Amino acid sequence: MTADDFPPDCRATLTINLGAVITNYKHCGKLASTAECAAVVKANAYGMGSEQVARTLFNQAGCRSFFVANLTEAITLRRVVPTAVIYVLNGIFPAHTDYFIHHNIRPVLNDPGQIKLWSELDQTGTRPCAVHFDTGINRLGLSSEETRSFVTDTALRKKLNIALIMSHLACADDAANPMNSQQLNKFTAIRQHFPDVAASLANSGGILLGPDYHFDLVRPGLMIFGGNPHRGKEAENIDPVCRISGRILQLRQLESGQTVGYGVSWTADRPCHIAIINIGYADGYPQLFNNCGRVYINGRMLPVIGRVSMDMIAVDVSELNPDEINVRTGVELLGEHITLEMASEVSTLSQYEILTGVRERYQRIYQ
Amino acid sequence: MTADDFPPDCRATLTINLGAVITNYKHCGKLASTAECAAVVKANAYGMGSEQVARTLFNQAGCRSFFVANLTEAITLRRVVPTAVIYVLNGIFPAHTDYFIHHNIRPVLNDPGQIKLWSELDQTGTRPCAVHFDTGINRLGLSSEETRSFVTDTALRKKLNIALIMSHLACADDAANPMNSQQLNKFTAIRQHFPDVAASLANSGGILLGPDYHFDLVRPGLMIFGGNPHRGKEAENIDPVCRISGRILQLRQLESGQTVGYGVSWTADRPCHIAIINIGYADGYPQLFNNCGRVYINGRMLPVIGRVSMDMIAVDVSELNPDEINVRTGVELLGEHITLEMASEVSTLSQYEILTGVRERYQRIYQ
Repeated sequence: MTADDFPPDCRATLTINLGAVITNYKHCGKLASTAECAAVVKANAYGMGSEQVARTLFNQAGCRSFFVANLTEAITLRRVVPTAVIYVLNGIFPAHTDYFIHHNIRPVLNDPGQIKLWSELDQTGTRPCAVHFDTGINRLGLSSEETRSFVTDTALRKKLNIALIMSHLACADDAANPMNSQQLNKFTAIRQHFPDVAASLANSGGILLGPDYHFDLVRPGLMIFGGNPHRGKEAENIDPVCRISGRILQLRQLESGQTVGYGVSWTADRPCHIAIINIGYADGYPQLFNNCGRVYINGRMLPVIGRVSMDMIAVDVSELNPDEINVRTGVELLGEHITLEMASEVSTLSQYEILTGVRERYQRIYQ
Repeated sequence: MTADDFPPDCRATLTINLGAVITNYKHCGKLASTAECAAVVKANAYGMGSEQVARTLFNQAGCRSFFVANLTEAITLRRVVPTAVIYVLNGIFPAHTDYFIHHNIRPVLNDPGQIKLWSELDQTGTRPCAVHFDTGINRLGLSSEETRSFVTDTALRKKLNIALIMSHLACADDAANPMNSQQLNKFTAIRQHFPDVAASLANSGGILLGPDYHFDLVRPGLMIFGGNPHRGKEAENIDPVCRISGRILQLRQLESGQTVGYGVSWTADRPCHIAIINIGYADGYPQLFNNCGRVYINGRMLPVIGRVSMDMIAVDVSELNPDEINVRTGVELLGEHITLEMASEVSTLSQYEILTGVRERYQRIYQ
């Protein structure tokens, strides 16, 4: 043992299946038909590890374009995929221009100030960028008025090498929402002004809305990481990427009337057996799972009882034979049996938030 | 610029005030009077950085005892405070004994199996440990029956060097809860069997319950990090430790009727100005802040509108003069003005969960 050794099995584990990342990415690409399939790897690849995910997608799945949120994420990613196209969704600010150029990173220009900044930097129009048009989410991107002004400003447009025009859907996860077709119509109208430029509208949910939404490049994130934006539909083709396994710290017998956890929010209505598991909200298992989470042990779905603690949860294991469970028994909190959809449903957390919520304390295992 | 440079200001910042950590620790110590004041630094010191926090508390505040959740946290901490006492709350497992000994770490023995393991390892009773008695939270620790058996087992007790007996309160944050005095009475009875051993019952909330709960050692966590377990009371002596500041990515004008964000959950009922800020749930600002969060800009509390996105929130800044706000204007999401208590109240998140929720994407600044 050296001073740097860590013991086995003293932490919960987060297992990330990179094979499933490849499968899911290819599934997105197939759905998107002729459109290029990029990958959104912001927020540390939705918590799954941007370095491992991007390297895998580039080397083993042919992905050539990546989207991140900020410039720090982009610079980190550039070390991993030296020749890929990298876009920064948050845009560009005056102090950042040299970094974009030095690392060959493309800004997504979100407002007239950013367009001016990039155009003045690069009057010859050789450095590629994306321009973001808002079509209704009212987050980032040119407003309708700014869009009208920009599309007809030939002089300004000549100073830019626009490699991509894009917009973002507000309700792509809800196929029936009329907002989708409204945004599609607005984006289609804008696109008329850029006949030779690649266009992109769809995130994961947008891909499932059908070919009209695919344009030239799609930007899946959630589906690559095993999430399913359109609950239930198409789920059979999305493989789980993330498995969270805890270990049992202690098994307890309770008498009827005994309470469990902080705030005594659960009371045994019969004698029962409980297991204390080494995962809590500091690991990214939020208190929204209080008294409603589910874990999987030895073939059974078992309920989380009481409040989630910072480092632990309690599970009612009375259904199991006491002989078949001990401190070495594996406990699945997320994975093949406790799916993202199921965890989302019981907790009201979005699948996105569950994924990006995974914390640093887990022992991470890449498969 | 080197390849390792990161640009300024492209990330939101998490500023951790180590001076306030010292002040708060000393305040806990003063409240606890003659009891030793330990520090609970599990979960990366509640998200604030266990290395920086423990080094500061050891070197500048005289803290000599630390509690962590698991052995990996303990080994990491051992490098930082080589001579401190370190306890592992999760207990000990067969594969871990060598690590405890090698790194001079003390297990908190939670059940008869762990007691047997440690006693067989160290029959001379020289290696210190803690024994945890459950008094009602039903999480970790000896049950009532196991306790009765253990306290009278003189032979077994002789094989152990019990440096600390402890228990944990289930309702310490609710001073009026009768559970507190029930647990106090149980623990006091157990303590009669260990007249020469240091005893510990109180976490932060327990410290505020008064001297009866202090025994020989108190174990604050939340209060050291600027949280206040008894909402409102004693808050004047707890300094905020954590400040979260975002940057404005874009300012937008909305017409009446326009919607903001995913799922179009917010609609402007008048023309207004909004700011898009570079913090989202992937940074640890959960969707429980949807349409109810508050940020502080230029002396005003302003509302988060619409859903929290993965990397952004939208804020209604119509109250501000458009001339006084631009992309360089600072935005406080947590700190002196948006206190932990306030953030907890609007979101229903516990102060503990808000603190431990802070994610790796922030630029961290220690003061």
